[in-house]
Amino acid sequence: MTEIPRERGRVPGSTMDEELDVSYAKQMLDTYPRSFNLDAGLLAAAIDALADCGQACDACADACLGEQDVANLVKCVRLNLDCADVCATTKRVLSRQTEYDANVTRALVQACVASCKACGDECEQHGEHGMEHCRVCAEACRRCEQACTQLLEAMNA
Amino acid sequence: MTEIPRERGRVPGSTMDEELDVSYAKQMLDTYPRSFNLDAGLLAAAIDALADCGQACDACADACLGEQDVANLVKCVRLNLDCADVCATTKRVLSRQTEYDANVTRALVQACVASCKACGDECEQHGEHGMEHCRVCAEACRRCEQACTQLLEAMNA
Amino acid sequence: MTEIPRERGRVPGSTMDEELDVSYAKQMLDTYPRSFNLDAGLLAAAIDALADCGQACDACADACLGEQDVANLVKCVRLNLDCADVCATTKRVLSRQTEYDANVTRALVQACVASCKACGDECEQHGEHGMEHCRVCAEACRRCEQACTQLLEAMNA
Amino acid sequence: MTEIPRERGRVPGSTMDEELDVSYAKQMLDTYPRSFNLDAGLLAAAIDALADCGQACDACADACLGEQDVANLVKCVRLNLDCADVCATTKRVLSRQTEYDANVTRALVQACVASCKACGDECEQHGEHGMEHCRVCAEACRRCEQACTQLLEAMNA
Repeated sequence: MTEIPRERGRVPGSTMDEELDVSYAKQMLDTYPRSFNLDAGLLAAAIDALADCGQACDACADACLGEQDVANLVKCVRLNLDCADVCATTKRVLSRQTEYDANVTRALVQACVASCKACGDECEQHGEHGMEHCRVCAEACRRCEQACTQLLEAMNA
Repeated sequence: MTEIPRERGRVPGSTMDEELDVSYAKQMLDTYPRSFNLDAGLLAAAIDALADCGQACDACADACLGEQDVANLVKCVRLNLDCADVCATTKRVLSRQTEYDANVTRALVQACVASCKACGDECEQHGEHGMEHCRVCAEACRRCEQACTQLLEAMNA
Repeated sequence: MTEIPRERGRVPGSTMDEELDVSYAKQMLDTYPRSFNLDAGLLAAAIDALADCGQACDACADACLGEQDVANLVKCVRLNLDCADVCATTKRVLSRQTEYDANVTRALVQACVASCKACGDECEQHGEHGMEHCRVCAEACRRCEQACTQLLEAMNA
Repeated sequence: MTEIPRERGRVPGSTMDEELDVSYAKQMLDTYPRSFNLDAGLLAAAIDALADCGQACDACADACLGEQDVANLVKCVRLNLDCADVCATTKRVLSRQTEYDANVTRALVQACVASCKACGDECEQHGEHGMEHCRVCAEACRRCEQACTQLLEAMNA
């Protein structure tokens, strides 16, 4: 089987140093042709956290559907689906720098914080009762909520 | 400024070892409650490559819009937008294991290969003429095309 | 050529009466197995307006890219892309009734109002200068902004 | 309560004539600044059918989650989620005319036909056993499958 390296955004030919951890989001910001106001590190961290959280939520909704006890996981599926959608859209809007609109961005990131909070709270409960996929997803939601909150603070500073 | 670590999927409390590179996609597959037929490593690699490519394409479309010479980048923007959408949907479908449908999955991954090929070809040309965001995006498209092709081969084996 | 009727949601076999105008969104709400708090008519109107606005924004971004004067339409393209994404996600969240979360929904609909306002303002200007696709898109944005605002008012009542 | 008219794409000030049924998809095609190869009527019909099917699938997944017997509807939820995503992306790609790529479009529409077929088959069964939301959703899937098939035939002619 051909091996695909697991690391993302590895700069080709780079040695084992911090360059290894540069995500595509950060590389794309670093090559953006205009200047932009937000801190590139905070922005890339938010975009990466949104990508992780969106994927984890899609996978967690599916894993809940795969559980024998699906009837008790309906709320979790629903919040996962919402959070996956909101993260996906917030990620796309934050990936755009050209003709940035602060009002739209701020309102959307706030909605995303609400969505990550609701989904993280629900998943955390199931994670504490042995649902491992919910535990992992709750972690992704918490990190995304944190990254979005920090971005909001930077936007309002 | 509070630091957000750049690494994704870091297992909390893990030491600096290979655990660091386990993406959320792989963690979610590892905690999925049922069995599934596809190789988890290939599948996680494809999901991660789709996430990276989708983000890079969204950002590249935006970077092209930020270039002075946008009129000569219209084809690139269009292919980026399509590729971002196709990668996002393919990522979501591959993130679902429950009641897997081989026909739908195969047809969609084939469409994704076509989209990554078209966008990668276009971006590569601009990358060779100094558009750094196109060079990075072309790399993400090539890796995604490769990961999807390997997954298709495994599905057909 | 086989004819596909243009009307949406036409109930098969129905005669030319008001049934003809029942959208799929309304039909799906009418067959939802549980009760829900929001007014079905307002909700269906918002979902339909979001679908129309999302599609118009995707098409308007593309039409702007097809204009000779694309360099002067970059802001319009960007706002169109954001609005298309935000409308698509808001539509999906509003299409879900099970385990409704008022905080997430309200924040997202507010973000959608901001997005429709920004995009509608921009498109309206270009529409007044002869860009017909911008004129049509501005109309879709205004209707969507209005439908979302009315839904928010009902949620807060 | 303020009334929002249910009809979509109503041309303001128009009298009760066939103008009433012109969807935004068709209006956007009619105002596109370049020429395009595909028949505008077929294309608009496909875009409208994709919008309807995507919305019905999102709502049907949610309605299934709201059923007491959700455990027997897991396959339906999964196929609904896939079909909603594939329709949404196919709709966006078909809404773009600028720098059309036949390979990407054809592969994606084929994937969409497969998805509508799989979801329509599943929903139809549940619809025959009294699930009204599945019956409505099956109808939307069949219409979308038909519209996409007709578009494919026109593309290959």
